[in-house]
Amino acid sequence: MKFKKMLVPAMRKITCIRMFIVTVICCLITSFFTNASAQNGQRFMRVARIVVDSAQLDDYKAALKEGMESAVRTEPGVLSLYAVYDKEEPTHVTVFEIYLDEDAYKAHIQTPHFKKYKSTVQNMVKSLELSDVSPIALEAKSKL
Amino acid sequence: MKFKKMLVPAMRKITCIRMFIVTVICCLITSFFTNASAQNGQRFMRVARIVVDSAQLDDYKAALKEGMESAVRTEPGVLSLYAVYDKEEPTHVTVFEIYLDEDAYKAHIQTPHFKKYKSTVQNMVKSLELSDVSPIALEAKSKL
Repeated sequence: MKFKKMLVPAMRKITCIRMFIVTVICCLITSFFTNASAQNGQRFMRVARIVVDSAQLDDYKAALKEGMESAVRTEPGVLSLYAVYDKEEPTHVTVFEIYLDEDAYKAHIQTPHFKKYKSTVQNMVKSLELSDVSPIALEAKSKL
Repeated sequence: MKFKKMLVPAMRKITCIRMFIVTVICCLITSFFTNASAQNGQRFMRVARIVVDSAQLDDYKAALKEGMESAVRTEPGVLSLYAVYDKEEPTHVTVFEIYLDEDAYKAHIQTPHFKKYKSTVQNMVKSLELSDVSPIALEAKSKL
């Protein structure tokens, strides 16, 4: 009986340590895949180069940002959308897009938030050049 | 004494649950910052557009990939390097670069792996256009 009384807390301690170790391992695995999966060459990727009407640049940026946020937040297949503007030519915008696959991209352009973006900016965009691209290497730390 | 014997395992259980909860919260915070820090507008970012000699394209890609892998793996300030080529014009390469700050970029171009890349590719590159860019929005799921 005395032995059992000593054993129970010891076993609880072991269970506790086990639970802790399993949780840490799960976190490490998640972190590993966060890094490693960025190497995946099967993604559907494109680069959009846009020249915006300078008088409407702020409105354009707001519309783009809103559409991008909705897409990444609500669409499982929209993995990454990075939009930047050239410091020397601020009307020159580049969007670097990564989708899970081509179907995810096709689904994306049918969403209400994408259609809203397109209709909002239709008179703000002076030129649009879309390039389908393939990865040479996608290297990223897990924390940007 | 009996009360104490009952209390000790109960307290251990509470400590165990606490440790588990703290670990889970830490993971959630890490995950949050993995996403949220991508929004950081203080990063130093640039887009490089490179046209490569078609006869040396494979060698160029290998050198670029090697240099990028070394940079992201060994330099704390090199956060993300995405290199892609145009599907229709495979000699047209775009590299989307995110550094912690401008100092991290300056340190990067002094590294042996960057210098090795530059000397390896000097006769492979037909044109190079570098643009310093600022983010409009950087939206990414934590797992690419």
